[in-house]
Amino acid sequence: MNIRSNPDTTRPAVTTGALPASRKIFATPEAAPDLRVPLREIILSEGAGEPNLPVYDTSGPYTDPAVTIDVNTGLPRNRLAWVKERGGVEEYEGRVIKPEDNGNVGAAHAAKAFTAHHKPLRGLDGHKITQLEFARAGIITKEMIYVAERENLGRKQQLERAEAALADGESFGASVPAFITPEFVRSEIARGRAIIPSNINHAELEPMIIGRNFLTKINANIGNSAVTSSVEEEVDKMVWAIRWGADTVMDLSTGRNIHTTREWILRNSPVPIGTVPIYQALEKCNGDPVQLTWELYKDTLIEQCEQGVDYFTIHAGVRLSYIHLTANRVTGIVSRGGSIMAKWCLAHHKESFLYTHFDEICDIMRKYDVSFSLGDGLRPGSIADANDRAQFAELETLGELTKIAWDKGCQVMIEGPGHVPMHKIKINMDKQLQECGEAPFYTLGPLTTDIAPGYDHITSGIGAAMIGWFGCAMLCYVTPKEHLGLPDRNDVKTGVITYKIAAHAADLAKGHPAAQLRDDALSRARFDFRWEDQFNLGLDPDTAKNFHDETLPKEAHKVAHFCSMCGPKFCSMKITQDVRDYAATLNDREQGMAQMSAKFKEMGSDVYLDAEKVKESNRVL
Amino acid sequence: MNIRSNPDTTRPAVTTGALPASRKIFATPEAAPDLRVPLREIILSEGAGEPNLPVYDTSGPYTDPAVTIDVNTGLPRNRLAWVKERGGVEEYEGRVIKPEDNGNVGAAHAAKAFTAHHKPLRGLDGHKITQLEFARAGIITKEMIYVAERENLGRKQQLERAEAALADGESFGASVPAFITPEFVRSEIARGRAIIPSNINHAELEPMIIGRNFLTKINANIGNSAVTSSVEEEVDKMVWAIRWGADTVMDLSTGRNIHTTREWILRNSPVPIGTVPIYQALEKCNGDPVQLTWELYKDTLIEQCEQGVDYFTIHAGVRLSYIHLTANRVTGIVSRGGSIMAKWCLAHHKESFLYTHFDEICDIMRKYDVSFSLGDGLRPGSIADANDRAQFAELETLGELTKIAWDKGCQVMIEGPGHVPMHKIKINMDKQLQECGEAPFYTLGPLTTDIAPGYDHITSGIGAAMIGWFGCAMLCYVTPKEHLGLPDRNDVKTGVITYKIAAHAADLAKGHPAAQLRDDALSRARFDFRWEDQFNLGLDPDTAKNFHDETLPKEAHKVAHFCSMCGPKFCSMKITQDVRDYAATLNDREQGMAQMSAKFKEMGSDVYLDAEKVKESNRVL
Repeated sequence: MNIRSNPDTTRPAVTTGALPASRKIFATPEAAPDLRVPLREIILSEGAGEPNLPVYDTSGPYTDPAVTIDVNTGLPRNRLAWVKERGGVEEYEGRVIKPEDNGNVGAAHAAKAFTAHHKPLRGLDGHKITQLEFARAGIITKEMIYVAERENLGRKQQLERAEAALADGESFGASVPAFITPEFVRSEIARGRAIIPSNINHAELEPMIIGRNFLTKINANIGNSAVTSSVEEEVDKMVWAIRWGADTVMDLSTGRNIHTTREWILRNSPVPIGTVPIYQALEKCNGDPVQLTWELYKDTLIEQCEQGVDYFTIHAGVRLSYIHLTANRVTGIVSRGGSIMAKWCLAHHKESFLYTHFDEICDIMRKYDVSFSLGDGLRPGSIADANDRAQFAELETLGELTKIAWDKGCQVMIEGPGHVPMHKIKINMDKQLQECGEAPFYTLGPLTTDIAPGYDHITSGIGAAMIGWFGCAMLCYVTPKEHLGLPDRNDVKTGVITYKIAAHAADLAKGHPAAQLRDDALSRARFDFRWEDQFNLGLDPDTAKNFHDETLPKEAHKVAHFCSMCGPKFCSMKITQDVRDYAATLNDREQGMAQMSAKFKEMGSDVYLDAEKVKESNRVL
Repeated sequence: MNIRSNPDTTRPAVTTGALPASRKIFATPEAAPDLRVPLREIILSEGAGEPNLPVYDTSGPYTDPAVTIDVNTGLPRNRLAWVKERGGVEEYEGRVIKPEDNGNVGAAHAAKAFTAHHKPLRGLDGHKITQLEFARAGIITKEMIYVAERENLGRKQQLERAEAALADGESFGASVPAFITPEFVRSEIARGRAIIPSNINHAELEPMIIGRNFLTKINANIGNSAVTSSVEEEVDKMVWAIRWGADTVMDLSTGRNIHTTREWILRNSPVPIGTVPIYQALEKCNGDPVQLTWELYKDTLIEQCEQGVDYFTIHAGVRLSYIHLTANRVTGIVSRGGSIMAKWCLAHHKESFLYTHFDEICDIMRKYDVSFSLGDGLRPGSIADANDRAQFAELETLGELTKIAWDKGCQVMIEGPGHVPMHKIKINMDKQLQECGEAPFYTLGPLTTDIAPGYDHITSGIGAAMIGWFGCAMLCYVTPKEHLGLPDRNDVKTGVITYKIAAHAADLAKGHPAAQLRDDALSRARFDFRWEDQFNLGLDPDTAKNFHDETLPKEAHKVAHFCSMCGPKFCSMKITQDVRDYAATLNDREQGMAQMSAKFKEMGSDVYLDAEKVKESNRVL
């Protein structure tokens, strides 16, 4: 790994290089042999006795040694051809960048502009533009073929090798197929149950899909604030976040240089980028929500559509009549977007312009295929406020808006809480599915207690794993700095790894047909004392190796058949191996362990592996 | 805080001093005015407009500035009088310490012996000794009065101030009363549904209770190994673990100096100490499980009973006939105790001596009131092995042994997994309650995925929170070093805080009547921008403050009405306050918000606060 090692100080340095014992490989979908779908192959040690493990790879070209990275030019714009070849779009001059787009920053504090300029595309009237429109028309796009291949991960071969079906989860009505076909992707998008956030102007994108019948995804938030941090830091945070597994990144920048920062991020991002346009709109009226207008907001939407933002958080569910429902809350309104709109509504004593102009917003976003992330501006900010009327009134409105956006041809997902104790999580998921016609749910946490500032990646990781199991499609990470300050690189990594754990635990519990392959490979490595394989198969090989080396630093120990927990003469795994050897000998003498095993199977030894028994246990709950 | 600041290098230094903005206070139970039950009071800032918050305090005299700590003499032995005054015990010479008790350590490597020697007590035939025996006889002991007061925490007053009942949880059959009375404690112990681990020789103990109708507890493991670490480090790890909230501590030392290390820990520990006696027994036969004998094990039990160990993990459920059930597992037997006994059983082709001598074990432990922690020697070590026949066969045997131990008058809890995906957690809890007559469950994690070595405090914290909600009484922590190495001080703290989060999240979800008081106090502080109060009400004030100061170090910022997430002109909480002010004005003008609120209530605005709705949502699950 090369951390910020670029000797050329005139361009921002970012982290490049492969993860330990990993190489980038590419799959070629049968349906579109010109596509190259990236995977990461984890290379096992010699003598592992099993094949290398391919895993999903969000990291983009940054981990590909064959690619020379130059953030000044940005990533290759491969997707431009896909968009153009299906037609229905036009290139045009685009909106002129105004000083207010960067908060009227003076020359002294202006960030360096991104070098290249790409003219934007927009959809032509009377043509299909969005993935939803293509899907409904029965057309399979390259984006759909790409994500189908990506979700399968090359695990098809591995599953075929596996003796039995691995999936015995409880999916709560989700139906993850054994293999994902492009047609399945199309049908899920047509149904509104999945989205591929993919602005036609984000040509650097490696498409991915969000929906409860696919792998659970995670989002990482980055963004400078008025108080601290720089453009360069934000680009590197994006690269760093996707290195560890962020599926999408939200740029939540405020203050000056917003437009420029976003341009650098988009031109260098292989993952979908989300924003909250109201943040920039607010900057354009000097931070005073009362001064916001529909025209100003609309202009900001177009600005960001042209840049290539893939999804917008839009808090159109914060209606005038809901605001007073928050007055007696312990923590009022904690969403920034929600509070801005609440103040605007009250100041003018008018319905939110996001709600009254929702049709027009749809028309704009459709032209670029920007997906909706309908924001939960009234989400609870404390355990005390969870599942209250304000929260659920807004959710009902989001359901109403989902149908309008779908009618307009737009892709939609729905944002969710927040702070929610464990016993109130499931009702959130159930109600979201019901109100919003199974549009993908995208939740922040939820945090399951308020009492651990500094550890909210953990309070929320618990809730995230649970709601992911219950059907949430994407989990927005929370870092250890939540409520306290801006995350740095270490915090971003901790947040991403924590949420990869939550998402994977959810996939296992849902019964994703291939999720357990990685657990099993790692557990075999652990049991065989293949230390390096154990590190490399984990989510964070560097940390695992460092922790091991703190106690047993010598190379020899990494092949030794003991670990520091027990020491050389006292190791449970070693003893188990002895037990196995002994049992084998014993059984040769005593006419075969196989027979004994068979006998125990007759006695019902597998009863607790039975998926139905497990489901029954959860149903009682 | 004074970290290891003792200038006198001849005695081990440990961490003393109060937590930030905290003072030790004592409650005096009506039923026994001679008892002083410690609490920690978190002192809020002037102008907080609400009372200080008393919280449960596990830290012992180490956080009491009025006590001078000298680990050479140990803690005051207050409980000796309680035991003696109820009679039925005799003081005796006790077993002579043998060289093998410390692994035949030579003079060069011998740890310094603990200075004071206390003659042990043991129960006399025909007398009641254990808390279970007293409880069944309708006798309320001082230990019972003590824990009743401790569980109530002085929150009685606060609850009386609260306008409404706070508890709307889903308890899955647990029934936590609004207030804990000594009689309730007695009845739960008599029923076998709770235990007070309290060896009559652990006179330094501040008693605590483990059971699903009480606060969810956590355990921290410490212990040197053959490879690394010293006596001094282990004593300080114990003090450090209880400082952050460990309710019990297990000393899992192996190698040399085991007896001496344990003596130092016990004489300085205000919390129950648990051990796994087979570890020491194995050291006495040079690490060869085949050489173990009942006599050697029995002698070790008596040695540890006399020292004052409060609970023993005993793997008596690893029966000869279950061992081959593990042969096809991905990770075989991962419990150290389990693998030792498996090897012994196979080597001799005999039933486990722990099983065949179980009656005698009960008779020994009863004499000192050492509680059973019936070990899960066949727990799953990987997702692949969860809930298999080996695991559940053992659990059924633990149920059988529970009844035997109860008949003998012994207190019992049951250990549980291990590695279990989320959808298989509840069946573990359900089966344990059913097989073991509701004896308290004490689980390690469970870890909900295998793929994150270095982060197993998180993979397991998710499972721990869930099983705590479902009814688990005590959660054994997992540190970030799990599977990789021995935890250091930082790892111990991280493990403890993570498990305090899990236990508290469980209490909230179960509907513990007072759990939410702390969440609410912290959330109010957060919303009021009382930064110092927010830090101090959290589980780890130091970390929260440091994180805040990394971004906004100035003192002035800690009273400022904004945070670094948004900056001064763009803060959702500030805007919400504006919204509230505005709403109040508006409503004065428009004839009252109260009327509007009333109208919304009629419309069903409180429906989602209804506990029954929430429970229904979980039942569908």
